[in-house]
Amino acid sequence: MLITRELLEPLGRGCAVLGAGGGGAYHGAVLAAEQAIDECGPVPVVAVEDLEPDDLVMPCGQVGAPTVSLEKPGSGREGELLRARIEALTGKRVRALMASEIGGANGLQPIVWAARMGLPVVDADGMGRAFPEMQQVSMHVAGISPSPCVMADERGTVAVYYPVDGRWLERMCRTAAVAFGGSAASSEYLMTASQLAQATVLGSVSRALSIGQILAGRGNEPFAEMLQLVDGICLIEGKLVDVERRVSGGFVRGTVSIMGLRNDSGRVMRLELQNENLVALEEGRVVASVPDIITVVDTHTGDAVNTELLRHAQRVTVVAFPCDPLWRSAEGLEVVGPRAFGYDFDYKPVEVIHSDR
Amino acid sequence: MLITRELLEPLGRGCAVLGAGGGGAYHGAVLAAEQAIDECGPVPVVAVEDLEPDDLVMPCGQVGAPTVSLEKPGSGREGELLRARIEALTGKRVRALMASEIGGANGLQPIVWAARMGLPVVDADGMGRAFPEMQQVSMHVAGISPSPCVMADERGTVAVYYPVDGRWLERMCRTAAVAFGGSAASSEYLMTASQLAQATVLGSVSRALSIGQILAGRGNEPFAEMLQLVDGICLIEGKLVDVERRVSGGFVRGTVSIMGLRNDSGRVMRLELQNENLVALEEGRVVASVPDIITVVDTHTGDAVNTELLRHAQRVTVVAFPCDPLWRSAEGLEVVGPRAFGYDFDYKPVEVIHSDR
Repeated sequence: MLITRELLEPLGRGCAVLGAGGGGAYHGAVLAAEQAIDECGPVPVVAVEDLEPDDLVMPCGQVGAPTVSLEKPGSGREGELLRARIEALTGKRVRALMASEIGGANGLQPIVWAARMGLPVVDADGMGRAFPEMQQVSMHVAGISPSPCVMADERGTVAVYYPVDGRWLERMCRTAAVAFGGSAASSEYLMTASQLAQATVLGSVSRALSIGQILAGRGNEPFAEMLQLVDGICLIEGKLVDVERRVSGGFVRGTVSIMGLRNDSGRVMRLELQNENLVALEEGRVVASVPDIITVVDTHTGDAVNTELLRHAQRVTVVAFPCDPLWRSAEGLEVVGPRAFGYDFDYKPVEVIHSDR
Repeated sequence: MLITRELLEPLGRGCAVLGAGGGGAYHGAVLAAEQAIDECGPVPVVAVEDLEPDDLVMPCGQVGAPTVSLEKPGSGREGELLRARIEALTGKRVRALMASEIGGANGLQPIVWAARMGLPVVDADGMGRAFPEMQQVSMHVAGISPSPCVMADERGTVAVYYPVDGRWLERMCRTAAVAFGGSAASSEYLMTASQLAQATVLGSVSRALSIGQILAGRGNEPFAEMLQLVDGICLIEGKLVDVERRVSGGFVRGTVSIMGLRNDSGRVMRLELQNENLVALEEGRVVASVPDIITVVDTHTGDAVNTELLRHAQRVTVVAFPCDPLWRSAEGLEVVGPRAFGYDFDYKPVEVIHSDR
């Protein structure tokens, strides 16, 4: 598969749906990718089988508060800074890039950098969605070392971390992202292709593109078709009546409330945010939670809306759909289940909560 | 010269005088050095001429708020973590350690680590005193690159920085020190011995030891003798009547006021602090300022008192003495003069301010 200019917009829309409100708004990333592809040509997306087993893959993306990324675009050369440092540290050539998270702008970010480097992007990612913290990736669960973690900013400063564990990875990188002005480029959990085959969510780029292409379709209710593709449940249709949101410690945090309209009139749902939509609550009951994917969609455009862009009185439809099966294992839930985010309840799959529908 | 157990206490006292209130309280470092020397033997202090021109020297010390170091001792193996990473990055063996700053505990820190590694310490440092910020070293003025800057904490996490300039070195390291819990071990401005000969303050360890040995002497007014050795001026003798101090952004900041006693009765002096004593003011007039060395001495014991240990009603004598000539050049003042700390006045040498004495 070749990512051409024409595929960027649908890919971005699909990444936004998978992003659960996080990963950064995709619009800026589409513009950056268009520019990179115009200047350097389209980007091949390869399956892991297309790589040699020992080929080094560089997972990458932006870390920080997505609100900041709206106003602080990258220089476009952060990917090259990351690669140069990784190659100097490992003595190996980077053969392909991979999105650390397929969600939001971070699903497109490797394409921007890969275009400028003439490298392919692997059809896989570390989450199958977006999560807020650095250790919340499939590679962590698979036991891949996060070291060396390399970060770079748009001015050219580079930092390398060798953390003792995933908690220290998150702590050092988050602080660095704040010092860099609120967001920065990052690569961690370097892998060979053979490790990648066992340690990632495969097919993520294709999946995002399929979702986006359905949404871009003008026939037969694209939204319902998209819901069917992801096994999604429509939680509520209504309007945003309360948005409480702040940038804190390198994250977007807050809560939003949706008042039901039309068929959902009289209902109120609350979402709790940490970059992503973590939990949906109605009358004190959990109606969906991490690691399942909760996405807010603009009712008029069908476009997924990132948490940093939710605004008062916006007409929205909240959907939820199952995460990758990896995250439903005991090992997965330990890293990204409700308790990993400080909630005092156990995870229930979204289709189980709504089995009466 | 061989640093034996017996020389540690006088060396620490001398480092405290040169520290201008900063660099960390020396008492804990003396204990750590005693333990290291008891276990591994004394540490040779070598002149730069004793090294081969290409020998790699590792400047090192603790960075952060000294108040934190009082309660968060190191593991003793941070030096080895720094060295291992530097050797992996450069492909060269570290042949000697050097204090980044001779002031306070940081003057002794390389001895603790060098003892455990069986390496010598060079009779030199990067300041001839202590300064609060990372780029405030002679190596910066000499144009040595700060990259790679390596940091380590007592748990084993290691960070490496390649900053675009000295300001980003300070910013990234300060944030990392805060993330590490308020202080961490650090090495930056790696040099060969031939670079070191041109880029550092030579003879600092010997000088600190001479000062400490005078203070430890029981005959003929050791305090007056010490003042003579450093060309010092006694600014005021009195007691601390106000101490306003906080830990902020990885620094100790605040002001203290000294009410004159005896011959100085009726006078009040104010010191402004950022880890070190930056400025001494009397009736709105600057009576001493960075880069000259302002040190508060306990009137009863003759011991220099670090800024984080100043306490209400303490009987103290404030002394000031000339910094290394390097800092009085235009290039030096740009980095450590009053304006580098945000003050709106020009530097005047302390002996010029008090030329009427």
